[in-house]
Amino acid sequence: MSEPLLSELKSELLAISDLNSAAMVLEWDQSTYMPAAGADARGRQIALLGELAHARRTSPRMAELLRGLSSVADRDDLDGALVRRAHKQWERATCVPASLVSEIKSHSARSYVAWTKAKPSGDFAAVRPYLEKTVELSRRYADCFAGVDHVLDPLIDANDPGMTTATIRALFDSLRAQLVPIVQAIAERPAPDRDFLERAYPEAAQLAFGAEVARELGYDFERGRQDLTVHPFMIRFASDDIRITTRVDPNDLSDALFGTIHEAGHAMYEQGIARELEGTPLGEGVSAGVHESQSRLWENLVGRSRAFWARFLPIAKERFPEQLGDVDLDTFYRGINRVERSLVRTEADEVTYNLHVMLRFDLEAQLLEGTLKVADLPEAWDARMASDLGVRPPSPTQGCMQDVHWYCTTIGGTFQGYALGNVIAAQVFEAAREAMPDLDARLEKGDFGSLRGWLTENLYQHGARWEPGELVERATGKPIAIDAFVRHLHGKYGALYGISF
Amino acid sequence: MSEPLLSELKSELLAISDLNSAAMVLEWDQSTYMPAAGADARGRQIALLGELAHARRTSPRMAELLRGLSSVADRDDLDGALVRRAHKQWERATCVPASLVSEIKSHSARSYVAWTKAKPSGDFAAVRPYLEKTVELSRRYADCFAGVDHVLDPLIDANDPGMTTATIRALFDSLRAQLVPIVQAIAERPAPDRDFLERAYPEAAQLAFGAEVARELGYDFERGRQDLTVHPFMIRFASDDIRITTRVDPNDLSDALFGTIHEAGHAMYEQGIARELEGTPLGEGVSAGVHESQSRLWENLVGRSRAFWARFLPIAKERFPEQLGDVDLDTFYRGINRVERSLVRTEADEVTYNLHVMLRFDLEAQLLEGTLKVADLPEAWDARMASDLGVRPPSPTQGCMQDVHWYCTTIGGTFQGYALGNVIAAQVFEAAREAMPDLDARLEKGDFGSLRGWLTENLYQHGARWEPGELVERATGKPIAIDAFVRHLHGKYGALYGISF
Repeated sequence: MSEPLLSELKSELLAISDLNSAAMVLEWDQSTYMPAAGADARGRQIALLGELAHARRTSPRMAELLRGLSSVADRDDLDGALVRRAHKQWERATCVPASLVSEIKSHSARSYVAWTKAKPSGDFAAVRPYLEKTVELSRRYADCFAGVDHVLDPLIDANDPGMTTATIRALFDSLRAQLVPIVQAIAERPAPDRDFLERAYPEAAQLAFGAEVARELGYDFERGRQDLTVHPFMIRFASDDIRITTRVDPNDLSDALFGTIHEAGHAMYEQGIARELEGTPLGEGVSAGVHESQSRLWENLVGRSRAFWARFLPIAKERFPEQLGDVDLDTFYRGINRVERSLVRTEADEVTYNLHVMLRFDLEAQLLEGTLKVADLPEAWDARMASDLGVRPPSPTQGCMQDVHWYCTTIGGTFQGYALGNVIAAQVFEAAREAMPDLDARLEKGDFGSLRGWLTENLYQHGARWEPGELVERATGKPIAIDAFVRHLHGKYGALYGISF
Repeated sequence: MSEPLLSELKSELLAISDLNSAAMVLEWDQSTYMPAAGADARGRQIALLGELAHARRTSPRMAELLRGLSSVADRDDLDGALVRRAHKQWERATCVPASLVSEIKSHSARSYVAWTKAKPSGDFAAVRPYLEKTVELSRRYADCFAGVDHVLDPLIDANDPGMTTATIRALFDSLRAQLVPIVQAIAERPAPDRDFLERAYPEAAQLAFGAEVARELGYDFERGRQDLTVHPFMIRFASDDIRITTRVDPNDLSDALFGTIHEAGHAMYEQGIARELEGTPLGEGVSAGVHESQSRLWENLVGRSRAFWARFLPIAKERFPEQLGDVDLDTFYRGINRVERSLVRTEADEVTYNLHVMLRFDLEAQLLEGTLKVADLPEAWDARMASDLGVRPPSPTQGCMQDVHWYCTTIGGTFQGYALGNVIAAQVFEAAREAMPDLDARLEKGDFGSLRGWLTENLYQHGARWEPGELVERATGKPIAIDAFVRHLHGKYGALYGISF
């Protein structure tokens, strides 16, 4: 009875997915190869594809289809999940008035320009009025969604469905209580050497080595490729065309290498999604947090492990004999895991990273609540840095103006995913190790397929079938919690720094 | 009064142009960087964009707008030309039933597969039934257009507006009468050496040299770029993003070099179109013939001239000292202009090339008329090769199966542009030389801007404002004719081969 409607819905959703994929090809080209002069026309073309996708998503027929399929939405099968996710996307697309969307868009463009100009000198006064307006627009945007407990909730829900300000706060507060003493204890220990990472590493050799590592881990280059961009990213055009990009610092081996593993992690997640979900709302990573969990799992839990480098350091030494000839496994392992109380999130290590993220989450929640004024943001930021990390930014350039996020669109809902990712990664990795007690030995032998197979079986293939909370609980047997992550840090960094936590 | 309609029409045409440009970005990526596995989804995405553009072009509102603007179409200004061309495109898009379009599409896909399989062994029997069906579909396609004298006319009109079978036949018959004796006379003379072109030329150095030449000629890399593909092409995404592609034969300097100049010629034409025409039906090259005239003008009339190599041979010798150290200007100039009675169009020289093209034009006209049966095509082809060029293909692989054109879509309407291009190129170049009697001296000094400026002023900037016949007459003072081309061949090849024509 509902079959014709369902098949019409799927075909309409496929068209929307194809329009979005087409726009992404245009964006990929813009970031990789497009001559800069092409930007105006390209922006217009991308905007047109976005409008066409939006028009189809919010069409009267789409509303009819979803109404007609409301009984399917209650089903526990794939089609039920598909209709539910399509309905949610429809709701999000229809509940914000077009006038507000366009007001946000034009304000954001101005705000971004102001930020790029003011950031180098740390001139917060210059961006303040823009950020004040952004906070106001973000509140109005959030107000379009009915029945929420906290202004931040609908913004979080857009990227991490099923999560709320309350659940994330609870998670983050307990995590912070654990992290601050770990960082303090490590800060009192001597810092390991990492100078060998900062020798001259030719760009082409770095790219080739990164690709070699990504291939061995299981990123399928037959269904993807790697290009250079200013900011690395993963992008999906189709099941069989999922690309990564990399940036290379000729004087730091770790930037391109761990960046490549990170993006390959995102890509292996997408490459592992069941083919039957292609072109449906279920055929994509389910949330920012789960996506980041897979980039971080491969980057940190695999890529910064001793087992991994037991295998790869000899290969790295062959590729870079002059730069790494004098470095042994122990030195290398310590160097790539050095913990630092640094100012900049994107350069932070595995231990301090979440503190940077949680600071942002808390401050944006306060800005949106109105309990923190934009004018007071720099001081609130610096005070929190001092209390959590023991360092104070000398200027907003390295403080509350360092990230583009608050200056290029609405604020709220994006940062939590970075920290959730680390937490989920550890929980998933622990579950994988329980299933394969000899996991380290397998990694050391270069058997990455076992781990990838387990992840595909338990996480990747399901795409967006279940909300993140349910997906992680099905995969690990437990609700999302910080325990595994804290255990991981205590174990790894206790051993590395000779501290008993 | 018509202003609101006109502005609505322009905005609708801009959207259609943007959809087509988006599809072209997807096609470019498919030819350059896409992993092969991405082809299925990519095909679907490109088809969707094509359908959306077609739907907008044939929408009821488009018909209303064009009806409402019929008085503007009579105007002699830019808007008049714009409405006329939009109307013509609308007519072409609406007069062919969708069912026929889709029948042609699916037949063509099957035919193409059959051709790729049968070509290597020259198995004409295997492609014959496909070609017979193609001829039938091409006739039915042509029959959709009302009021034409010859079945080929609407097919020609699609690519070379204003031209007909009759006018092209008249032009080609007289040209053939001139060419056959030139080729015969040259065949009796000793063939110059070109072995030095077939030495080992490293790929990267060839690409760099080609780009250097293209840049000096005036192809603007700030508004374009060059990539590698199997078949070279030029592609336009916007006024400020017009790209070329190149293929490199590591054992033949001329393939990439003249291929690059050829595509750069196409691209300089597009880059020279007035910016105000961007996104309108006038903002593109006006016809296949005029487009090809500019690729051939730069490739042959400039790129194979003695003046050009007086400047570039010393540079080429610096880039390729081992390969070209022993080659003097005279030898080089003779080598790149060697005339050969060869079997394959794409490898043909400036003199014989048109004979290859005109043969195809005549045979496809006969196939469509029904005066030639598909079964008799191989013999008709071979006989004509023997009479025009004095050589007979040993197999259809080098005969009537050599080009993809007849096996991948409807037949008719594409080949004439290649020969028209050579004819128009010579006429335009002669006019430029009349305007600048010291043109050769300027080219020899590396002043290509004078020529490019004259071409931009007289041809490029006008885009598709006038039909090709009018455009060429405005630029050169004369209707399109073969005289200048014949004079060029007599002069150049008479001197090269010591023949007085």
